[in-house]
Amino acid sequence: MNYLQCSKQELEQEYQSLKKLYEDEKGKGLSLNMARGKPGKAQLDLSLDMLDVVNSKSDFVGADKMDCRNYGILEGIEECRKLFGEILGVDYQNVMVGGSSSLNMMFDTISCLMTKPVVEGGKPWYEVENRKFLCPVPGYDRHFGITGYYGFEMIPIPMSEDGPDMDMIEKLTAEDDTIKGIWCVPKYSNPQGITYSDETVRRLANLKPAAKDFRIMWDNAYCIHDINDTPDELLNIYDECVKAGNEDLPLLFCSTSKITFPGAGVAAMAASPNNMKVFKERYNFQVISYDKLNMLRHVKYFGNYQGVLDHMQKHKAVLAPKFEIVLDTLESELVPVGIGTWTKPNGGYFVSIDVLEGTAKRVVALCREAGLVLTGAGATYPNGFDPKDANIRIAPSFPPNDELQLAMDVFCICVKLAAVEKLLEA
Amino acid sequence: MNYLQCSKQELEQEYQSLKKLYEDEKGKGLSLNMARGKPGKAQLDLSLDMLDVVNSKSDFVGADKMDCRNYGILEGIEECRKLFGEILGVDYQNVMVGGSSSLNMMFDTISCLMTKPVVEGGKPWYEVENRKFLCPVPGYDRHFGITGYYGFEMIPIPMSEDGPDMDMIEKLTAEDDTIKGIWCVPKYSNPQGITYSDETVRRLANLKPAAKDFRIMWDNAYCIHDINDTPDELLNIYDECVKAGNEDLPLLFCSTSKITFPGAGVAAMAASPNNMKVFKERYNFQVISYDKLNMLRHVKYFGNYQGVLDHMQKHKAVLAPKFEIVLDTLESELVPVGIGTWTKPNGGYFVSIDVLEGTAKRVVALCREAGLVLTGAGATYPNGFDPKDANIRIAPSFPPNDELQLAMDVFCICVKLAAVEKLLEA
Repeated sequence: MNYLQCSKQELEQEYQSLKKLYEDEKGKGLSLNMARGKPGKAQLDLSLDMLDVVNSKSDFVGADKMDCRNYGILEGIEECRKLFGEILGVDYQNVMVGGSSSLNMMFDTISCLMTKPVVEGGKPWYEVENRKFLCPVPGYDRHFGITGYYGFEMIPIPMSEDGPDMDMIEKLTAEDDTIKGIWCVPKYSNPQGITYSDETVRRLANLKPAAKDFRIMWDNAYCIHDINDTPDELLNIYDECVKAGNEDLPLLFCSTSKITFPGAGVAAMAASPNNMKVFKERYNFQVISYDKLNMLRHVKYFGNYQGVLDHMQKHKAVLAPKFEIVLDTLESELVPVGIGTWTKPNGGYFVSIDVLEGTAKRVVALCREAGLVLTGAGATYPNGFDPKDANIRIAPSFPPNDELQLAMDVFCICVKLAAVEKLLEA
Repeated sequence: MNYLQCSKQELEQEYQSLKKLYEDEKGKGLSLNMARGKPGKAQLDLSLDMLDVVNSKSDFVGADKMDCRNYGILEGIEECRKLFGEILGVDYQNVMVGGSSSLNMMFDTISCLMTKPVVEGGKPWYEVENRKFLCPVPGYDRHFGITGYYGFEMIPIPMSEDGPDMDMIEKLTAEDDTIKGIWCVPKYSNPQGITYSDETVRRLANLKPAAKDFRIMWDNAYCIHDINDTPDELLNIYDECVKAGNEDLPLLFCSTSKITFPGAGVAAMAASPNNMKVFKERYNFQVISYDKLNMLRHVKYFGNYQGVLDHMQKHKAVLAPKFEIVLDTLESELVPVGIGTWTKPNGGYFVSIDVLEGTAKRVVALCREAGLVLTGAGATYPNGFDPKDANIRIAPSFPPNDELQLAMDVFCICVKLAAVEKLLEA
C-alpha cells in the first residue's frame, strides 16, 4: 500500500498497527546509535598491528635524518608527506602533515584567514562584513559548524548526482566578493555518498570568483573509502586548477581517521606554495612540530601507498554488509509504502535519506524515544535548518550487524509512523 | 686579568692571543648546537618503554568506558586529566588534555580570544586597537612570537630574582585596559631559571587589571624539572587566585614534551569554568577529540603522579652534569676576565648569560662562524630586540657531554674575543 494513495481510513488502520509495532520496539529497552560516522570495533581491530611497529627497539631516524622522538620538522617527516602526496594526488612538497585531525587543520585554515589575508593587499575575513561561505546541502555538520562559529552567512547550494549546482556557484561567486569559499566533500560526499563529476571538478577549477581570496575547502575524507567493486573516480582538482591557472584556489585535506584510528591517526593538507606560505607562517608560531612518532608508525605499518590501498580492502569487507543491511531494509520496508528516497553510494560512511517532507525531526524524536540515536534532523544543513525537514543521515558503520538490523527496523517503523501521522493531519 | 681594567696594549695582546685560539677552533670544522631546549638522546631513551605499553594486545577501554581507539571525549580521558590535574595543582575537572603541544594550546587560546570575547560584553582582541601584552624579559621567544603574530605591542617587564617587576605590572594593568595579558614561565623561567617568589605569585593573583579580559598565560613548562637536590618551590597560582576572587585570571599550561618525547608527548591546560566554557565552545568546533591512544600510553606508563616524579629523577641525572659543564666553564673562563653575569638555576633547561653590553650579536655570529649554533641574540626579547645587546640563552641539554664541553670552550673564547674587540673600539 502506497501511503500517498491511501484513504483516511486506511491510514488510520495503518497508524494503529504501526503504533503497536512502535510500542513493542520501545518496550525492548534498546540502546542503539547510528549518529556519527564512527568506525566499528571490527574496523579498529584491522589496524591493531600498527601499534607494535614503533616500539622500544625501533630505529627512530627517518629520511630527514632526524630522530622522530625529538622536536623538529614543522611540515612532517618526508616519508609521511610522500604517502599523503599520493593519497591526495599532489607533489609531496605541497603537503603538510599535522596532528591527528583534519578537521583541526580545516579549522586552523579558516581561523588563519580570519585574521590574516591570504592574498597580498587582501583583507582578513574578520574585517569583511556579511562574509559568506557556500555550503552544498545536504552536507557535513562539522564543516558548517566552523564557518558558523566564525560568523559566516552560509548559503546552501543544492546537490545533484553530479555534485553541487555549478550554475549557482558560478553566478554567485562571480558577483559577490564577500563569498570567501565553499565546503566540498568531493568523493562519497557526506551524507549522500555522491562523487563530483569530471565536469563539476573542471568547472570548480575554472571558477573566476570576484573575491581573489575565495578558496575551495576540498575535504577528501573518503578518497579511498570504497564499499563495493564499482568505486567512483574523482578527477584531480589540483591538476585541473593548475591547468586553469587557478593553482591557489583549492585547499586539500584528508586523514587516516577512517583508515587507522579515528582521532589517533594522522592528518594532512596540501595547497599551492602561495597558500602554504601563509599557513606555514602561522604554523611556525603555533607549534614546533607535530607528532612524528605517529607519522612514523603509519609509514612503517603501510610501507607505501599500495599498502594503504590493500588495507582499505579490509575496511570494505567490514562495511559492505552494513550498507547492504541499510539499503535492503529501506528497500523492503519503504518502497512498498512509497515513502522516502535515498542514495546508494559506492563508498564513504553514510546513506542519506529524504523522508516525507515535514517529518524528519519527528522521525529522529521517535527513534530517540525508542532507544535509537540518529544524527539530529537538520544537522546536514547550515545552522541545523533543513527547510523541508526531510533529510536524515544514516551512519551504519558503528553498530555490530545484528544491532544495525534492529536499528534499521526501528528506523523504518518510525519513518512510516511519522509519515502516516503527517498524512492524517492533512 | 680583568678586561675592564686592562690597558689598550694589554687588550691588543689579548686580542691577538684570542684571535689565534678562535682560528684554531674554526679550523676544527665543528658542528655543534646549543640553540634550542631539546632533550638529548640519553633523555629520549629514558621513555623508550612507554612505546610498548600500548600495543596490539592492549585493553583500550579507560575510566570513561570508551574505546580510546575511536572518536570521542573532547576534554581527554579522565585518567589523563587527573594526572595533569596533579601536575598543575588543580581539580581535574578544570583540565583539558589536548594534542602533543602546549605551545599549540597557548596559540589556540590567544587565537580564540582574538575573535571571541572571554567575558560577557567584552570585545574580541582583534577589535582592540593598540592591544598590548606584558612580556617579562629575558623570556621565551616562542611566546613573544604568538603575540607578535597577532599584532600585540609587547611591553618588556624586567625580571629580578623574584620574577617580573610587580610594581610595574600592577601600575600598568591598573591604568591601561588595552593590556590583555602577560606571559609567565613561573618556575625555572626560560631562559633564566628563576622561580617566581611567593610574593610575586600572590601579587599576580591579586591583580586588579583595568581590562576585565586580562589573562595570565601561566606556562608551567618546567614545573617538575629539577636539576639538583635543592629544587625551587612555586606557590599554586590557581589557589591564590581563588582566594583573591580572581579565579578567571590564570590560564595554566604544561606538557610532557620534556618528560617523555618532545613533540610526541601530551599537552594540557587548566582554567576556571568560566574560561573553559569559552575555550571548549571553540574546541568543540575545532576537533572531535585529541589522540587518546597517546594519553593512554602516558597514563599506563607512569601509573600515577609519583611515577612521573620518579621518572623526572632520571632526567635530572642526565641533565645535572650538563649544567655543571656549562657553569664550571663559565666560572673558570669568564670570572677571571670580569666579563659576563649568569644564572645558576635549580631546574629548567637554560642558563641565561649577559655578556658585555653591545656584544651579544657579535658573540653569536662568531660562534656560528666557528660551527656552534646558539639561540639568536635578542631572541629572548619581544621582536628580537635586546636594547643592551647583552643576553644570550645557553641550552645545554642536546649535545653529548664531550661536545657540550667543546661548545662551551668555543663559546667562552667568542665571549672574550667580542668583549676585547668592543673594549678596543672604545
